[in-house]
Amino acid sequence: MTTRRYSAAEPVGQLVEELHKLPGIGPKTAQRLTYHLVRMPRDDAMRLADAILAVKDRIVLCSQCYNITETDPCPLCSGPTRDRTRICVVEEALDVVALERTGVYTGLYHVLHGVISPMNGIGPDELKIRPLLDRLKGGGVREVILATNPNLEGEATSMYVHNLIAPLGVKVTRPARGLPVGGDLEYADEVTLSRAIEGRQSM
Amino acid sequence: MTTRRYSAAEPVGQLVEELHKLPGIGPKTAQRLTYHLVRMPRDDAMRLADAILAVKDRIVLCSQCYNITETDPCPLCSGPTRDRTRICVVEEALDVVALERTGVYTGLYHVLHGVISPMNGIGPDELKIRPLLDRLKGGGVREVILATNPNLEGEATSMYVHNLIAPLGVKVTRPARGLPVGGDLEYADEVTLSRAIEGRQSM
Repeated sequence: MTTRRYSAAEPVGQLVEELHKLPGIGPKTAQRLTYHLVRMPRDDAMRLADAILAVKDRIVLCSQCYNITETDPCPLCSGPTRDRTRICVVEEALDVVALERTGVYTGLYHVLHGVISPMNGIGPDELKIRPLLDRLKGGGVREVILATNPNLEGEATSMYVHNLIAPLGVKVTRPARGLPVGGDLEYADEVTLSRAIEGRQSM
Repeated sequence: MTTRRYSAAEPVGQLVEELHKLPGIGPKTAQRLTYHLVRMPRDDAMRLADAILAVKDRIVLCSQCYNITETDPCPLCSGPTRDRTRICVVEEALDVVALERTGVYTGLYHVLHGVISPMNGIGPDELKIRPLLDRLKGGGVREVILATNPNLEGEATSMYVHNLIAPLGVKVTRPARGLPVGGDLEYADEVTLSRAIEGRQSM
């Protein structure tokens, strides 16, 4: 007789494995979450499973800005009060939520769904850059704000998009670089501090 | 006309909310996971939802040791090679998996499903302590290993269980306290180091 190694019941192992596939969920966290789900009331677990299926069934990409939405075009693209002469280009749908939370931007968006990253095999054709150019060629847009993340890949992607937009005669801007509000000057990294001094504004 | 605040599509908000209810998942992580699930292939998301439902449908508590299992009694309680004279008492089903991974323990288990924690309104009656006493009264058990977590609540729970078991004449032990293997002596906290010195073993 062979000694079989004990492992948790098969559905438990299965759930640990599926959770572990999610970004930022390590094996330990996947285990903790699984055992939490095992103990959770059935209705709560059902609600979670249903919510997962609902995003797959009911969410589509807006055919204009490629934001995720339940209706096409999305509420932002079809909003009667939005400024249609401005398009803010972002990497992810999450960035739209963050920008809308500020309330200072009233224009349209364009979601690239990633950044150019040769290391990960993501070239310009994997992103929604071509549809952006088509929107601009359609006319009516006077300013494009390139709001990719202020890191190496984000900057490179912005540069690439900028070069494609430049010939179209549209004004291209990007959010200011500087000291984060509420931060400490002495803890700011060198690059941020340099940008903040270079871009100093009159009071 | 009132200005409506933009929020992500309703199924997205729903999923963020459900994920946020899980332990250790803050609002930011819940958002990240949600957008990952939105982009994920439909089949992968289905597998995750199915795995969640499977643990609710197919997992029960073993009527003997209260470990989580697909079959009752669980494979450990019904294992022909397990030493039935020893019961190791643990807080969670996860602890069983951790102990079984070591391979050094061949006895049975008893899962308390928590610790006594008056702050959280968890008294002895919320735990599987009564069934443990019933098992011991059934006879045949010579040693109980109290392997609750080595923290305040775990120790208090062990003390409580110990007091109840003592009159039954069963030997009660607990895992050794000392320096974690692979650790650095200079980084060990005071209490751990004290316990390690007090419990020093001859070489």
